[in-house]
Amino acid sequence: MIERGRLITLEGGEGAGKSTLLEGLRAHLESHGVDPLLAREPGGTALGEQVRTILLDPAQRSMCAESELLLMFASRAQLVRETLEPALAAGRWVLCDRYVDASYAYQGGGRGQPVERIAALERWACAGLKPDLTLLLDLPVADGRARAAGRGEADRIEVEADGFFERVRTAYRARAVDEPHRFRVIDAGQPPEAVLRAAIAATAHLFGATA
Amino acid sequence: MIERGRLITLEGGEGAGKSTLLEGLRAHLESHGVDPLLAREPGGTALGEQVRTILLDPAQRSMCAESELLLMFASRAQLVRETLEPALAAGRWVLCDRYVDASYAYQGGGRGQPVERIAALERWACAGLKPDLTLLLDLPVADGRARAAGRGEADRIEVEADGFFERVRTAYRARAVDEPHRFRVIDAGQPPEAVLRAAIAATAHLFGATA
Ligand SMILES: Nc1ncnc2c1ncn2[C@@H]1O[C@H](COP(=O)(O)OP(=O)(O)OP(=O)(O)O)[C@@H](O)[C@H]1O
Ligand SMILES: Nc1ncnc2c1ncn2[C@@H]1O[C@H](COP(=O)(O)OP(=O)(O)OP(=O)(O)O)[C@@H](O)[C@H]1O
Ligand SMILES: [Mg+2]
Ligand SMILES: [Mg+2]
Repeated sequence: MIERGRLITLEGGEGAGKSTLLEGLRAHLESHGVDPLLAREPGGTALGEQVRTILLDPAQRSMCAESELLLMFASRAQLVRETLEPALAAGRWVLCDRYVDASYAYQGGGRGQPVERIAALERWACAGLKPDLTLLLDLPVADGRARAAGRGEADRIEVEADGFFERVRTAYRARAVDEPHRFRVIDAGQPPEAVLRAAIAATAHLFGATA
Repeated sequence: MIERGRLITLEGGEGAGKSTLLEGLRAHLESHGVDPLLAREPGGTALGEQVRTILLDPAQRSMCAESELLLMFASRAQLVRETLEPALAAGRWVLCDRYVDASYAYQGGGRGQPVERIAALERWACAGLKPDLTLLLDLPVADGRARAAGRGEADRIEVEADGFFERVRTAYRARAVDEPHRFRVIDAGQPPEAVLRAAIAATAHLFGATA
């Protein structure tokens, strides 16, 4: 029987360093003989990438919070079934740039969608798939914005006001408090090497015996 | 105070005659001084039309039933808030080619998504908007298929097997039995003029005093 892979998700606000850490973690895992699958949300499948286009399109200014939530989970339901579950079942590790916690943070904290609504969607849309480890890159909003600035035109989410991103950060931190065994909060204000070291330390327990 | 408009939805399987009836009803209403707004599902808004493209794209063969359900409601949530509610509140009548009953029929009956799941989505995604009248065009599956044949390439739903459309029809009829006051089932095997006459008779009570 093939040992199931591990699902590691990266979470945090805009410019916190998720994509940077993803590359560092990938290199680390490869040096340990693990060739991880990389995925991102929204997206990661043909369906998800089309949904991503709608979600980030600045022209979709009038998108209601309910549609945003439903589109996020439409992308996620497909990602779980088409990509994540088959990979994990085949023994592959997966590094995912955002997953379901992002909906609690953005659609919940940011847009005010009730947490019970999100939890109900998670129950059936995610087919029970929980990350083995979630790395939350925590950073003051202004610092993340400064890092992300000058990356070209802002997408539909990035144009939100600071208050939105403060609520996102607060919701992320609350998730980490609620599920301390799954989450590791990393101070994303450190230099990239320190962030990577903290992330690597957090993954140590995933090697070896099945969780 | 402006009297609220009426929402009339048209439901039924492929080729049952919904689009044909929509035009007939529109002409009838106009001759009575009512200029109805026409809408369709999925679609009816900029967001909805983009979602419709994904939903009907034959290349999205591997779309899971959960994503299909979520995409349908993403389109619907936006349609309700951006189009239907404002129009009805402004006193406009709306004729809608499919609405929430189609999800009970297609995603529920056809794809096997649990009815409680659909009902939960309806509760928050549709903002409480129920049709004043739903006309169900009921037709044996083979007859609808024969009518719809030769309309160019089949979309992602139309390629389903007959068993799928039998379940859709059964689910539609069950909805009509559950909500007899809202539904009027019309034998869509009649000539178009007879279908239109039946539909017009069903709308009579919507004129005059607010329901
Ligand atoms: N620890 C760090 N210290 C300073 N700068 C960093 C750090 N990590 C990443 N950066 C820089 O900040 C910018 C944003 O990083 P990155 O793209 O990894 O963030 P992100 O979380 O993926 O952003 P987004 O949410 O927009 O995808 C990049 O220019 C990156 O080089
Ligand atoms: N009562 C009827 N009797 C015979 N043919 C009809 C009748 N109503 C419509 N048709 C014809 O059947 C075909 C399908 O009709 P229509 O496009 O109105 O169905 P529809 O329910 O809108 O289909 P779809 O679900 O694919 O949108 C058309 O060619 C139309 O002219
Ligand atoms: Mg990134
Ligand atoms: Mg039609």
